[in-house]
Amino acid sequence: MTVLSLHSYAAGRWVAPSGNVNRLMSAVTGEAIAEIGADALDFAMMADHARTIGGPALREMTFHQRAAMLKALAQYLNDRREPLYELSYETGATKADSMIDIDGGIGTMFVYASKGKRELPDDTIFIDGAREQLSRGGNFVGQHVATSLRGVAVHINAFNFPVWGMLEKLAPTLLAGVPAVVKPASATAWVAEAAFRMMIESGLLPDGAVQFIAGSSGNLLDILGSQDVVSFTGSAATAGMLRGKPNLIANSVRFIAEQDSLNASILGPDAAPGTPEFDIFIKEAHREMTAKAGQKCTAIRRIIAPDAHRQAVIEALSERLAKTLVGNPRSEATRMGALASLAQREDVREKAATIAREARLVFGDPDRIELADADAEKGAFIAPMLFACDDPDAVSDVHSVEAFGPVATVMGYRDIAHAATLANRGGGSLVASVFTHDPTIARRMVEASGAFHGRLYFADRDTGKEATGHGSPLPHMLHGGPGRAGGGEELGGIRGVMHYMQRTAIQASPALMTGITRTWVGGSETIEQPQHPFRMRFGELELGQTIWTMSRQVTLDDIEHFARFTGDTFYAHMDEEAAKANPFFPGRVAHGYLILSFAAGLFVDPAPGPVLANYGLDNLRFMKPVSPGDEITVRLTAKHKTRRNDDYGEVRWDVGVYNQDKEQVAAYDLLTMNAM
Amino acid sequence: MTVLSLHSYAAGRWVAPSGNVNRLMSAVTGEAIAEIGADALDFAMMADHARTIGGPALREMTFHQRAAMLKALAQYLNDRREPLYELSYETGATKADSMIDIDGGIGTMFVYASKGKRELPDDTIFIDGAREQLSRGGNFVGQHVATSLRGVAVHINAFNFPVWGMLEKLAPTLLAGVPAVVKPASATAWVAEAAFRMMIESGLLPDGAVQFIAGSSGNLLDILGSQDVVSFTGSAATAGMLRGKPNLIANSVRFIAEQDSLNASILGPDAAPGTPEFDIFIKEAHREMTAKAGQKCTAIRRIIAPDAHRQAVIEALSERLAKTLVGNPRSEATRMGALASLAQREDVREKAATIAREARLVFGDPDRIELADADAEKGAFIAPMLFACDDPDAVSDVHSVEAFGPVATVMGYRDIAHAATLANRGGGSLVASVFTHDPTIARRMVEASGAFHGRLYFADRDTGKEATGHGSPLPHMLHGGPGRAGGGEELGGIRGVMHYMQRTAIQASPALMTGITRTWVGGSETIEQPQHPFRMRFGELELGQTIWTMSRQVTLDDIEHFARFTGDTFYAHMDEEAAKANPFFPGRVAHGYLILSFAAGLFVDPAPGPVLANYGLDNLRFMKPVSPGDEITVRLTAKHKTRRNDDYGEVRWDVGVYNQDKEQVAAYDLLTMNAM
Repeated sequence: MTVLSLHSYAAGRWVAPSGNVNRLMSAVTGEAIAEIGADALDFAMMADHARTIGGPALREMTFHQRAAMLKALAQYLNDRREPLYELSYETGATKADSMIDIDGGIGTMFVYASKGKRELPDDTIFIDGAREQLSRGGNFVGQHVATSLRGVAVHINAFNFPVWGMLEKLAPTLLAGVPAVVKPASATAWVAEAAFRMMIESGLLPDGAVQFIAGSSGNLLDILGSQDVVSFTGSAATAGMLRGKPNLIANSVRFIAEQDSLNASILGPDAAPGTPEFDIFIKEAHREMTAKAGQKCTAIRRIIAPDAHRQAVIEALSERLAKTLVGNPRSEATRMGALASLAQREDVREKAATIAREARLVFGDPDRIELADADAEKGAFIAPMLFACDDPDAVSDVHSVEAFGPVATVMGYRDIAHAATLANRGGGSLVASVFTHDPTIARRMVEASGAFHGRLYFADRDTGKEATGHGSPLPHMLHGGPGRAGGGEELGGIRGVMHYMQRTAIQASPALMTGITRTWVGGSETIEQPQHPFRMRFGELELGQTIWTMSRQVTLDDIEHFARFTGDTFYAHMDEEAAKANPFFPGRVAHGYLILSFAAGLFVDPAPGPVLANYGLDNLRFMKPVSPGDEITVRLTAKHKTRRNDDYGEVRWDVGVYNQDKEQVAAYDLLTMNAM
Repeated sequence: MTVLSLHSYAAGRWVAPSGNVNRLMSAVTGEAIAEIGADALDFAMMADHARTIGGPALREMTFHQRAAMLKALAQYLNDRREPLYELSYETGATKADSMIDIDGGIGTMFVYASKGKRELPDDTIFIDGAREQLSRGGNFVGQHVATSLRGVAVHINAFNFPVWGMLEKLAPTLLAGVPAVVKPASATAWVAEAAFRMMIESGLLPDGAVQFIAGSSGNLLDILGSQDVVSFTGSAATAGMLRGKPNLIANSVRFIAEQDSLNASILGPDAAPGTPEFDIFIKEAHREMTAKAGQKCTAIRRIIAPDAHRQAVIEALSERLAKTLVGNPRSEATRMGALASLAQREDVREKAATIAREARLVFGDPDRIELADADAEKGAFIAPMLFACDDPDAVSDVHSVEAFGPVATVMGYRDIAHAATLANRGGGSLVASVFTHDPTIARRMVEASGAFHGRLYFADRDTGKEATGHGSPLPHMLHGGPGRAGGGEELGGIRGVMHYMQRTAIQASPALMTGITRTWVGGSETIEQPQHPFRMRFGELELGQTIWTMSRQVTLDDIEHFARFTGDTFYAHMDEEAAKANPFFPGRVAHGYLILSFAAGLFVDPAPGPVLANYGLDNLRFMKPVSPGDEITVRLTAKHKTRRNDDYGEVRWDVGVYNQDKEQVAAYDLLTMNAM
């Protein structure tokens, strides 16, 4: 096999290894796979390129345009997975492991593309949360928005998931409109480089949007400023060293850390042997110990079971571990491949020895392994190891020392509070899982343990095959955790995008706020024209375009007629005396749905035109009762437009229904689909 | 005047000054006011007291109970402002300055009480964002929640607002259910101590909820852990020193920094002399320079005006500054009081001298002042100073050195992009203001400057007297900013509460999710009983209680009848051929409002009972058209309950309307008010 020459990609050019070039070895055969070294790179120039070329190009695009770009990019990579699987075997990964990495990374990008289209506006400014009324008169309003940071995101990735780790950071960053410099971990950088190369070859990304460092990141962190972001995945020790850098502190540079942690899995008190939950638990614990040879930040390190079932757990798990074929990851029969490197194996052995001082080894042997189709001397193979800790309250290493391999410790608990205390002893983790079928136990675990875990994963007989796995971060859900886990947050849907944007509180008059947010704000001027706004095509319609309808009296006959017709004979509409006794009504009142229906009758424009359908309604509030004899009038104002495709787009209308005294009786947002 | 002995409050006991006791001097007369010193405190015991006594007591309460506590506390302080004003004069503050501090702080607490009641649940777990469907079958769902951190919040406050600074941090912290240790700045600690003493005397807070350090915080930051939070307001230099502490980094301790910054105020290109915006701008710039003698983190330091109007700005501002009476803050005629200390005055003079190397002094004299009823030797008085910078692109100190007093620099700009560039040269600030009447200019400023400022404040003729002021952080809006401003966020409504809570991604089956969130989740079991759920009182109603109604056919006659009755003769309901041409309809379809009305007719229970009113409806989506002849059935399920008062509470119902093929045609949340 030719030794690959891993190139950096700096300011639009591929740069070959230079300076201190390191050789990277196959985790399986120990043979040289690639060369890496980035001493020749000019990091200041790279940061400058990102900030002055990549950033402006990305910021020119709306969220929807960036989402479309991500979708195309994900599709491009999806069509080219095979060569990546090939390269991935040499990292020790089985095909199943590689799918977590490669398909998982691409899937994450697809989800961000989809969320960007559905949950972000077709604009460059994100509207964050509700509008705030800042003055009694309504002439001063507040709105939080978010805009793209003007700097560069530096992504420092871990060795265990060279593709997923790169894409799960890139997707939210690019969606935010921020360029990135990717620095993969050297140990598996040949897979990252291949996937990165595909992204460049796709031609789908603007110049400067992404750059790549095949090697050390040199002084890059020392030249970052207040608009830049560092997003780090790796060990707690490295994270601590990096985040303390004086330059990062002096400039308040955002530093997102996601560290490995001592994740726990708890067998619920109700999940005794024989229950479906017990079986699901054993299967999951085994899978988390052995997938990726246990080299997952989210892997289960501590197995917490009721005292009464601890031995049953050890036995069931040992039985499954004994059947786990370890060996050549290319072989289909293999269930567990190699660690990423011989150095990594040494580290796991060392940490296992530390744990062994506080817990008994009940399965496996750190120094012996039966291998299928592989050489234990040349490849970084290690046997799965299960420890049992008899007094988990009295020890500390079991809760703080992570062997980053197929290693876990079983410990017993007395009651739920004790189980939570043990889980929390990890000092903050990425995920804890709980196997229970009892909603009360689930609630108590969240109360007792939520503050210590970035994710709490519950599985039971109901979730069955649909459960996504203790160890799988999903793009929809937060990935990160407090304390030992780094205190950072990644993913979590659009939350992950916001880490690359600046939230700003805007205070302004309604008219300026309408201009800033491109959403009509009550109190702004309205535009009234002879033509009904329902006659305007999507593109012609201006925000603020308004129709005030004729008025219509709501009679007692109307109310009675509506009651008979619909069957809604609620006493507040039918019985004067009973209605008066109700704390909210002065006497008989019109049905809310009658008001809505009459309002539609007043504003609807019957003939075919650009308005294709009323597809929904939001935030309806009845503010004042309508009594027989009241006259209602409706104001309909174009509030916000979102293009959906080439044929039509969504229009949100601000609707107010008023009585003869100009008092508002109902407010809602009407949603229509309008032709282009 | 007796010298006050400022006590600390540790683990429920008042502790007199001890160890290195410092004397604090009046900013006005230079006389000794108070003694301070906290060397005797056992900080580990204080942290332990907060974590083991205060935290559990606060976490026992729901958000609504904590909100009620804050409201009572704010009311208690509001009734006792007079003695605080008295003490505040000695800090150099005028009555107007003291009102910003004291009334502003109490007002912030009132707003948090109100938001806690309206925007947070009557529960201990906060539901964060929308539910995520994690599997196709719907048996695995995701929901982010937030729970109270289990540690202690350490509040390190600045000298300029001893009361506001304390209360704006305490309100969100206590609402989050987290105990706090307050460490005020020594220079004005006697005001903070008096207000703190009132809070303890009120008896409204549980034991351990708050403690107070009158003096240095010793080793407190070195013993914090991953569940603790440091919230700091002060100088960039101190913040940098603190956040780099190895213990904080090792444990990923949350560190929220709010630093002074080089805030800018921009006169819009449209706001020429003679426009209302020009006058508002001059008034605001003057107020921000002189209020609290310019000792505000949010004060205007850089005045950015169109080149053509720079001289006019200097003249108008100088004229107002010349009329500003500086002197004894107790005197009603005084418009500007003293700086907080003689040391502070020395610092301002030093910084002004630095600025003077890059800008011309056009008003004021750092060493001379005319004083009313005060002694310039004994009191920390200083004259307001205005500088003019001729080439703001070429200099740096003007954009980075803050004189924390009545000092600002005027500079000119060519166009909006240049104005934004200059504003952004501050390297991140708490606030920038823009005076313009043009929505297009406002939008461009947000695009060009949003990423550099935590708040953008727009004022014009429309906002008039309702505008809250460039320099006034509001509890509703974010306070904080990137880079030079510290990178932290405070306030911003409920966002500020979340800094003291841990966000956790929950993954579970619908049934467990219902148990955890106390909100019925689709796919959970429903409870069907003979009795209509509308017959259940608020307290009796269980989540999941459901009624499936009878079915009803929707006939063409119904549609035509409804159209005639309401006037809604939209062609999709009336004209088969035209309807068929519409991309969304198979032919004539029923009105959405007809479906809603018939649904109500099907589920309503007419006789008087616990359901008092239908007050609204959320998230209505029409999912499938209903054609003539279709039969609809309705499912109504109790989804969430929120107690409002002793008489009634809100019930949210999950409503599904289905056709004869069990396809859902409409979905919405129905809101009713139910008697207790």
